[in-house]
Amino acid sequence: MLPESLITAGGDEMAMDVIRLEDSKVVILDQTLLPTEVRYIECTEVEAIAEAIESLRIRGAPALGVAGAFALAMVALKNPKAPREALLQRLREARERIARTRPTAVNLSWAMDRVLRKAEAAGTAEAVVKEALWIYEENKEADRRMGEHGLQVIDDGDVVLTHCNAGALATAGYGSALGVIKASWKAGKGIKVVAGETRPLLQGARLSAFELVYEGIPVTVITDSTAAFAMKRLGIKKVVVGADRIAANGDTANKIGTYSVAISARAHGIPFYVAAPTSTIDPRIGSGEEIPIEFRKKEELVFFAGKRIVPDGAEVFNPAFDVTPAEYIAGIITEKGILRPPYRESIGALFP
Amino acid sequence: MLPESLITAGGDEMAMDVIRLEDSKVVILDQTLLPTEVRYIECTEVEAIAEAIESLRIRGAPALGVAGAFALAMVALKNPKAPREALLQRLREARERIARTRPTAVNLSWAMDRVLRKAEAAGTAEAVVKEALWIYEENKEADRRMGEHGLQVIDDGDVVLTHCNAGALATAGYGSALGVIKASWKAGKGIKVVAGETRPLLQGARLSAFELVYEGIPVTVITDSTAAFAMKRLGIKKVVVGADRIAANGDTANKIGTYSVAISARAHGIPFYVAAPTSTIDPRIGSGEEIPIEFRKKEELVFFAGKRIVPDGAEVFNPAFDVTPAEYIAGIITEKGILRPPYRESIGALFP
Repeated sequence: MLPESLITAGGDEMAMDVIRLEDSKVVILDQTLLPTEVRYIECTEVEAIAEAIESLRIRGAPALGVAGAFALAMVALKNPKAPREALLQRLREARERIARTRPTAVNLSWAMDRVLRKAEAAGTAEAVVKEALWIYEENKEADRRMGEHGLQVIDDGDVVLTHCNAGALATAGYGSALGVIKASWKAGKGIKVVAGETRPLLQGARLSAFELVYEGIPVTVITDSTAAFAMKRLGIKKVVVGADRIAANGDTANKIGTYSVAISARAHGIPFYVAAPTSTIDPRIGSGEEIPIEFRKKEELVFFAGKRIVPDGAEVFNPAFDVTPAEYIAGIITEKGILRPPYRESIGALFP
Repeated sequence: MLPESLITAGGDEMAMDVIRLEDSKVVILDQTLLPTEVRYIECTEVEAIAEAIESLRIRGAPALGVAGAFALAMVALKNPKAPREALLQRLREARERIARTRPTAVNLSWAMDRVLRKAEAAGTAEAVVKEALWIYEENKEADRRMGEHGLQVIDDGDVVLTHCNAGALATAGYGSALGVIKASWKAGKGIKVVAGETRPLLQGARLSAFELVYEGIPVTVITDSTAAFAMKRLGIKKVVVGADRIAANGDTANKIGTYSVAISARAHGIPFYVAAPTSTIDPRIGSGEEIPIEFRKKEELVFFAGKRIVPDGAEVFNPAFDVTPAEYIAGIITEKGILRPPYRESIGALFP
């Protein structure tokens, strides 16, 4: 019902696709196995996509938006001739299940709500699939533009610190924070990257380092708590990270540890930038205090690669995200340009 | 040649000894296997003790001091009737080998130099063993006194953050930072502890949590980069950490990540304390810039429990320690009392 070229949409920036819509399947790169193994899982049920999101086989706010949209597209492709109300019912059920997976990244519900609005307006499976693919294409375009805007703040010779993975693997495109880094590199700026390993799930070590090595950009991995000492001893000049949700005042939820990095950056006079598409901004939320923070299971800290590292009897505090107050953020690099403080005004101008 | 009770000196604070001098063997608890396995290694050669230190089977500045002293005592016990010059020669060779293991902790060379001075003065194996055992006993006494002084800065109901392990396992006694926490707990203060897991070798998760669970003190383990968010959300009131070397101006080398914690503590108005015996102060060193920092092998970050987590082609920056400038330190808790800024004066008064 749609041209093959549209249905099999693949990322063109990495050698491997992060997520693909194939016929009535959603094919997802299992990022938990990187960097040692490249394996895809084929999802034919909403529950399988939900599990992939909950297990972080796919992660990163923009990529989660695409995953949510593709989940709805899969439902539509499996029900090409369903009557309008039956289709909407199935889409809403899928939306509800997927939205329960991870509460912090706003892109997930943002993307599914966009698809649902189209479905409600058009009432056809085709409209659902088209909107999902359009979100995917927009995502990639937003990444390219973030890269273009962001390279203005990166100077030749900079050592740039990043945390977690806000790369192609996180956006299903080119990357937000890593997009800025890649664009700067491609523009001929001789930069070096320092990547925090990002405990507990090591997205910095496993995924950001993997992407940067792939691009040929020099990267040095550190434990997360080395960030402050690295600022002093490795001559870090800029910090660029992604975001999972940005409040109307600029407060930014991102991977746990980002707030520590922001505080250390300020103590060393290093500008701290957030790179995120405007779909990550949640103008309904006034400040970071209101952003729901996902807590993940104790086992993520208690065990590593099957080995127990925390003794029985100890508690664990394992938030997936923290909130960096806007006052620590020098600029928010979006596809529409770099937002500067005061953010209530610069963000307000985007969401009148 | 020495009474059995002196030769088999065991820690009386933990159920398990960290290090023991037994006949002419040094018996070391292999801390790399904790918390899942309690196994001792018996060292009969200097090289075996050096390997145990290099592999962090025994670690922590004060415990390393005892290990160095016991290594020399072992040499003496194996050569009970050696003539003076032959004995001194063997002791100096042992000192040289052991001193090469780890450059940052000053207690190691401090303790061995003390034993050597005794050996040079008395010229007998017995004097060497006595001095080593004396250092061990002094260490335990210093821990008790640090606990007594330190409990003054801990209030009932405090949530106390610590990093790495500055406990009984690190001192072969009662603990420095954890000694302060244990003394406060035993004095009836209803405290809770938050322990950073301490990547890459997880001494916080594996060792500090283990000791605290053993004592029945509530402990919550976090990833290191969660420290700043935990300060905001878990109501942390104090930070207490150990030290590996303290310069004459109060700048303090301690486990990598301590500096990040100190910066975050200041940003949240939380007092940051160092607990360390005066043997950790190196008055010959003017500031933290001069403290030699040990860099450890890349594999500590690249692999975990045999699983590769950093891709080939990425560099690694893996300092074992960082330096926290004195300006971040509210007080240094020693066995002689709490040193307060300006440290050049308070430390200077101890080393006239």
